Amino acid sequence: MHDFGKLFEPRGIAIVGASNDPTRTGGQTLLALNQYGYAGGVFPINPKYQEIAGRKCYAALGQIDAPCDIAVIALPAAQVPEVIAQCGARGIGFAVVLGGGFRETGPAGARIEAAMLANAREHGVRIVGPNCLGVVSVQARVFAAFGSITRPPLLTPGAVSAVLQSGGLGNSLVIRCALAGVGFRHVVSIGNEADIDTPELIEAFVADAETRVILTYIEGVNDGRALMRALRRACVAGKPVIVLKAGNTEPGKAAASSHTANLTGRYDIYRAALRQCAAVEVEDLDQAADFALALLPGRMPKGRNVAAMGASGGAAAVFSDAADACGLELVPLAETTTAVLREVLPPIASLKNPVDYTSGYPRPDTREAFQRAFDAVLADPGVHQLALLFATPNQRQLMIASELLANCVRACDKPLFVFSVIPADITPEGSATLARAVIPVLPSPRRIARAMAMLADYADRRERARAPLDPGPVARPELPPPSGRPIRLDEHAAKRLLAQAGIPVTRDTVLPADEVSGGLDALRFPIALKVLSPDIAHKTDIGAVRLGVADAAQLRHAAKEILGRVRTARPDARITGLLACEMVEDGLEIIVGVVNDAGFGPVVALGLGGVLAETVDDVTYRVAPFGAADAVRMLTELRAHRVFDGVRGREPRDVDALVAVLVHVSELAWSLRDRVVEMDINPLMVMAKGKGVVAADALVVLR
Amino acid sequence: MHDFGKLFEPRGIAIVGASNDPTRTGGQTLLALNQYGYAGGVFPINPKYQEIAGRKCYAALGQIDAPCDIAVIALPAAQVPEVIAQCGARGIGFAVVLGGGFRETGPAGARIEAAMLANAREHGVRIVGPNCLGVVSVQARVFAAFGSITRPPLLTPGAVSAVLQSGGLGNSLVIRCALAGVGFRHVVSIGNEADIDTPELIEAFVADAETRVILTYIEGVNDGRALMRALRRACVAGKPVIVLKAGNTEPGKAAASSHTANLTGRYDIYRAALRQCAAVEVEDLDQAADFALALLPGRMPKGRNVAAMGASGGAAAVFSDAADACGLELVPLAETTTAVLREVLPPIASLKNPVDYTSGYPRPDTREAFQRAFDAVLADPGVHQLALLFATPNQRQLMIASELLANCVRACDKPLFVFSVIPADITPEGSATLARAVIPVLPSPRRIARAMAMLADYADRRERARAPLDPGPVARPELPPPSGRPIRLDEHAAKRLLAQAGIPVTRDTVLPADEVSGGLDALRFPIALKVLSPDIAHKTDIGAVRLGVADAAQLRHAAKEILGRVRTARPDARITGLLACEMVEDGLEIIVGVVNDAGFGPVVALGLGGVLAETVDDVTYRVAPFGAADAVRMLTELRAHRVFDGVRGREPRDVDALVAVLVHVSELAWSLRDRVVEMDINPLMVMAKGKGVVAADALVVLR
Repeated sequence: MHDFGKLFEPRGIAIVGASNDPTRTGGQTLLALNQYGYAGGVFPINPKYQEIAGRKCYAALGQIDAPCDIAVIALPAAQVPEVIAQCGARGIGFAVVLGGGFRETGPAGARIEAAMLANAREHGVRIVGPNCLGVVSVQARVFAAFGSITRPPLLTPGAVSAVLQSGGLGNSLVIRCALAGVGFRHVVSIGNEADIDTPELIEAFVADAETRVILTYIEGVNDGRALMRALRRACVAGKPVIVLKAGNTEPGKAAASSHTANLTGRYDIYRAALRQCAAVEVEDLDQAADFALALLPGRMPKGRNVAAMGASGGAAAVFSDAADACGLELVPLAETTTAVLREVLPPIASLKNPVDYTSGYPRPDTREAFQRAFDAVLADPGVHQLALLFATPNQRQLMIASELLANCVRACDKPLFVFSVIPADITPEGSATLARAVIPVLPSPRRIARAMAMLADYADRRERARAPLDPGPVARPELPPPSGRPIRLDEHAAKRLLAQAGIPVTRDTVLPADEVSGGLDALRFPIALKVLSPDIAHKTDIGAVRLGVADAAQLRHAAKEILGRVRTARPDARITGLLACEMVEDGLEIIVGVVNDAGFGPVVALGLGGVLAETVDDVTYRVAPFGAADAVRMLTELRAHRVFDGVRGREPRDVDALVAVLVHVSELAWSLRDRVVEMDINPLMVMAKGKGVVAADALVVLR
Repeated sequence: MHDFGKLFEPRGIAIVGASNDPTRTGGQTLLALNQYGYAGGVFPINPKYQEIAGRKCYAALGQIDAPCDIAVIALPAAQVPEVIAQCGARGIGFAVVLGGGFRETGPAGARIEAAMLANAREHGVRIVGPNCLGVVSVQARVFAAFGSITRPPLLTPGAVSAVLQSGGLGNSLVIRCALAGVGFRHVVSIGNEADIDTPELIEAFVADAETRVILTYIEGVNDGRALMRALRRACVAGKPVIVLKAGNTEPGKAAASSHTANLTGRYDIYRAALRQCAAVEVEDLDQAADFALALLPGRMPKGRNVAAMGASGGAAAVFSDAADACGLELVPLAETTTAVLREVLPPIASLKNPVDYTSGYPRPDTREAFQRAFDAVLADPGVHQLALLFATPNQRQLMIASELLANCVRACDKPLFVFSVIPADITPEGSATLARAVIPVLPSPRRIARAMAMLADYADRRERARAPLDPGPVARPELPPPSGRPIRLDEHAAKRLLAQAGIPVTRDTVLPADEVSGGLDALRFPIALKVLSPDIAHKTDIGAVRLGVADAAQLRHAAKEILGRVRTARPDARITGLLACEMVEDGLEIIVGVVNDAGFGPVVALGLGGVLAETVDDVTYRVAPFGAADAVRMLTELRAHRVFDGVRGREPRDVDALVAVLVHVSELAWSLRDRVVEMDINPLMVMAKGKGVVAADALVVLR
């Protein structure tokens, strides 16, 4: 991996295109470096001046007479490639290209970007941008940047590093976090990502010892697997990555020709990939702030049980609703815990979880009692996280309570949250004590519940995300050779392929299309009769399937009917035969699909079969390959997941067999990643527990 | 309606139990009245003192020698009933009872509360509380209150009035709104609601000319219909009511014995009732602030089309995702609009919606160009609302832009929003201009999209909510007389009841259970044969239904089987016969249910039939009675609503007939509101368009 140390702690910064005018790009960089006290060398480059803003001005990069690690380039695009070459000649390892006029403006700009990149590669220069706000390193007061990121509200130093694929929105995200009390370490607005990209910077932050949480705004990445690798490394390093993903309503790239592909939007794939890598997806700016505050203490819950204490019954009600909606459990407190509470809290207190101590906050005379109460609930073995619902504390109340809580976090490693809507400037001492103790203060009970649920999800997911993505070599079935065009296997060939990968398929017999006669009595009736054709994807739609064929006579009749319909509806279709398939009764219909995404490679989709399931779009995804633990999660992610339990008197389904098939499909798809276009098992019949699953129809398209 | 004028603008306020000690309840009230400059009379009542905090102190209410309209009572509960009587004697119309110790503490407290209330009724005194923070009237600086509501951050005067069923959480809600820039008029923390309750105060705010938006925190109301009446009056008066509803996970009150009742939680009923009355439900504190800011301008969109403009592509992406998710349409701009934009915006601007003007903000030299651009998009007839995505404006940029937008709102009545994360103290002039122009500034594009969607929903719902709830007299079918116990009608009787209300039912024939023989050939086979019993609610579960009975011989066989099974499974059940029902083919199975809620009366539930639909809990509710417009919305609220369009080659369903049945069921339930316990049509078969609907099974329980 490249060493980004000198990008974030440069010995000197050159500004190519420096200016005295604070409305100009290069003027803003210089102003920020001067104003905020960057301690390294600052080298304005502009042949027109001897001095700018009290700094000696140089005519060219080559004249700089002191160590310099970054060149901030604030010039028209056309001049940038040449300056990159000069950076290399001067030994400047990083260029931050602020301006636009590159790929984003069309072919002419793309040519300039390519020339810039060629020079960078040739001269060993790494580029941030172009078309970006630049790089800010808060502790070191590095402002290789311009625009809003150099203006108030200024960031305070902290342990969050950010890489942002948007200037305005990205910096908005950072500012909302900062206003909520999040401190930052490195912030990079990455622009066009001509060279350095988001995955690489995530890895740089993983390597940075001071970064504890990573924040990123993503619209899209070229190499989905590189993103996943970076996210998994962050996971292994114990550094949560908070992701705000946008651009989710752009048309997906999956082929529209297949049923599963229609259900597959690219955002679904991103979501699955993020989840598999234990990235923490957020839906809005303030949620990023909440989650950063929740993750910074580094405290991880051991489960989904939560408790709450406070003096506001309303806050307890709102918290309970939200916790329930988030899948958290307001666990009953242990008898020993309740005994302590009974002893120390006012008699009218409600000792059930959420604990309502009703009258007032901790006071000087109740300090010890409340310390015992807080400690007792936190020490309760059934409680994994605790929310203190202070709501509207006054200065003195919060001062005392915060000291008690600071004692709590020294004594125990469970996550702790405070709900207060009172701004920190009204409760300065208490707020400062909580900040020092790294106890998150959030302005609503619901936001605390969501942060708690996020922590529980993260703690669960990061265990799985630490496993390597590639399972090693997987047996690859025999395939027809590539023909340069898509190859659609007929149902029989598709099922053989699946069977080779260990996926159970129906017992089928191929009959010649031209003469259905002999040997029919050997079939196990009833059967389903279908046309076999590599040209027909949706057989049912043209009446080319007959179910429940009971005997040889019916079969001959059905064969005639099917062939007649096919010849009418699809006279062009090649007919390779008829397929007599075992009938499967009492199975739950499931759809398992595979799409081969341009960025992420093969992705497995799971959905319930039938019209209603499609109508409510109840589908979940995983990037292949994956193991049983992820497959089990796929099942539970379906809204209708209770159907597997056997609702309404039906027997529970064979979930283990379904899980095994999902894993096999994911491994098959991975082994065929250079060939597979799409696969579709529809339906996969999931039988009662112990009776397995079976693919009743299948479609495979190769390239 | 009671006149609350003197509660909110009292000529004088007595504090019974006044104190010099600011940690005591009565001390806080007095301090707040002194400190914040209440201009009326302030009368401390405490026999121990001659003077408190510079005010003359009275020994009793009777001694007050000037006009006094409120008595704030800060005494132990036991003393309150007597003080209420003294209020009446002194002609004080309102008592604000701050302390606890009443109904919420058990039977002894409940007796005190009853005595207090009896005295209030006898002496013509109205009570706020007990067990509440009290009443604040911001403009008049009335603080008949104690606790956090009397401390900073203080409220600024404005047009939002609030009634809150919680002190701590309620005041948290108000404070978060205030911090977001919402001004308040009257704030009432209503506590136990012993006398004055939430619906009454909503009506009081409707009557208050200066209140434009109403905010309420509700945990529950005794009289759901009273709440609905108040909400509808607010709607008619053009005053939106924002509701934060909590306590939604408490066990519902609906009977657990019936299928539909199991699906019916009370929160579902609240949600339905709120929606029917065009109340604006919020899910968290900050959303209440966003929505208050969005509603205060009084601008209503004419539809769901939105546009956005800005210089941040990322903000445009996030906004587009969120708008799409909220069901808003980013409509293409008219050619005339685009022509103006092409003329005035930089050449690299993207002129599609969202408009991205890329380089910079409105500047002095581009002021006129941007005014034309903003005006053009706002004037576009296809655009109903506009978001300006400024993201991170600096002081000068926002100053100019805000002036242009202030011009826009003078010239047009469409809702307008600004996205900025920069705190108002960094952009004071621009922020003040926007505040004067009543243009909401929200800190994320997603929050703007959600506020826009809320406005569109509200504009749509308030039209329907203005219609009266009661449709007038509805024909009431004949019923068996009440017996003091629940009366379960058998399927045949239940269907007759439905048929009398205009609901189509299957053609059924009752056969005697003891001898199934003659007249069978007159039946139109195939039929479904079922046991008839008032004691068996779920016939299928015990094998008491046979479908597809083809002829008389099969029928005789099926009858024997059914009766055998019933006698084994339910030997106690009375068997009144067998029912031979018309078989219905090709219908979409729907469930229509009615529960009679203790607070809201009859409520109609609509869900899809079948195991999968139940599993995903796809059910929607309306308080009865309602008209076709609401019934149509019920259909669209189902997640699986696309099944009505005829997915996968199925014909579209007869939605008009289903709507008519929903309306009939709601009117039937309303007409039977004193008798009905529950009703259940399961399944109601919805046939192809033009072919109607038919109830294939029904259950009715009366009291």
